[in-house]
Amino acid sequence: MQGTFISFEGVDGVGKTTQVERLRAYVESQGRECVVTREPGGTALGVAIRRMLLHGVDTDNDGDCADIAPRTEALLFAADRAQHVAEVIAPALRRGAVVITDRYLDSSLAYQAGGRELTPAEIRNLSMWATGGLLPKRTYLLDMDPTRSHARLQHAEDRMEAAGDEFQRRTRAAFLDLAQAEPERFRVIDAGPSIDEVWSHIKADFDNVTATDGGVA
Amino acid sequence: MQGTFISFEGVDGVGKTTQVERLRAYVESQGRECVVTREPGGTALGVAIRRMLLHGVDTDNDGDCADIAPRTEALLFAADRAQHVAEVIAPALRRGAVVITDRYLDSSLAYQAGGRELTPAEIRNLSMWATGGLLPKRTYLLDMDPTRSHARLQHAEDRMEAAGDEFQRRTRAAFLDLAQAEPERFRVIDAGPSIDEVWSHIKADFDNVTATDGGVA
Repeated sequence: MQGTFISFEGVDGVGKTTQVERLRAYVESQGRECVVTREPGGTALGVAIRRMLLHGVDTDNDGDCADIAPRTEALLFAADRAQHVAEVIAPALRRGAVVITDRYLDSSLAYQAGGRELTPAEIRNLSMWATGGLLPKRTYLLDMDPTRSHARLQHAEDRMEAAGDEFQRRTRAAFLDLAQAEPERFRVIDAGPSIDEVWSHIKADFDNVTATDGGVA
Repeated sequence: MQGTFISFEGVDGVGKTTQVERLRAYVESQGRECVVTREPGGTALGVAIRRMLLHGVDTDNDGDCADIAPRTEALLFAADRAQHVAEVIAPALRRGAVVITDRYLDSSLAYQAGGRELTPAEIRNLSMWATGGLLPKRTYLLDMDPTRSHARLQHAEDRMEAAGDEFQRRTRAAFLDLAQAEPERFRVIDAGPSIDEVWSHIKADFDNVTATDGGVA
């Protein structure tokens, strides 16, 4: 793989989308191809999976959805990721692009393992099988007190977000544990300051990442 | 688990649906609860997954669907199976019902491992994780020369069936290999004779299976 693979992680509302767009503009200003994508939903199939995960499926058309079992959920996230890698990420990396994904493996680990009943090892094995072992070169974890990030959210609550503040707190802690376990891959960025200040930290690190690539094209 | 879990396997067109209905009528005639189900598509979520698998997802609304990657496909089948077990099969078995499924684990092994590029061990591990290790007490493999079963098919071709006769032949061979590897669980039934004759073999074996359960309720 010739390209550079970057992921952004963190709970909803920490400003991932804004920083992803900053990084995209920066990469493109250097004349390098940049592919921005997301999980779940980075492919058409992923969008369909995302719809099932967020809103469930109404078994008998009575307006109530059957619960999605924890293993089902884990397998659907892994299926989304497998397709995402095969259809979008791997081809772009083979072309030498910078690929930026809004959420990847670590979101599954933090949300499912931190929040639900499966072990982190199970989720990780599943995901590593789905991707053929592809990990980002750098993962930016945008970190903020969940009370603040929750207040920032503008859009309607979905199934995940409705799970509540305690869930958000556990998820944040799970993300921080993941970062601590893989300090080479992760950078934890304080998402509290201004957009410009957060971006300056990401930019400085990204310049180092691409410098060790042998520089941008 | 108090109930009896039975699966039917075999390539399309061998008469699984007919024999499943015969067995259902027989079980119900004994006053025992019988739950008949199928894969893919045993739950509302499974139906949505089945739609994606059979017809693909049109990425850019141009009428062409992106290929579903082999790992994606395997994970979607496993997700369907996980939900099927959690929502339908396991609750019915806990109630003491006879659960009859038209396709289960072995179809994934025969169609994906026999026909595509993943190893049988990978598919089996995935599926065993999805189901928490739940295997049928008895699997009836209805076996017939694929040329004959193909001619029997009335309904329109779908993605799987369009893969052609050579694929069907390989799949049949994969089913027979699976049966040979687990002779305790499998019974290979020649699906060539009349419906009544095929049923008489299944009925005789099923009476033995439930006799070792301590008889029907």
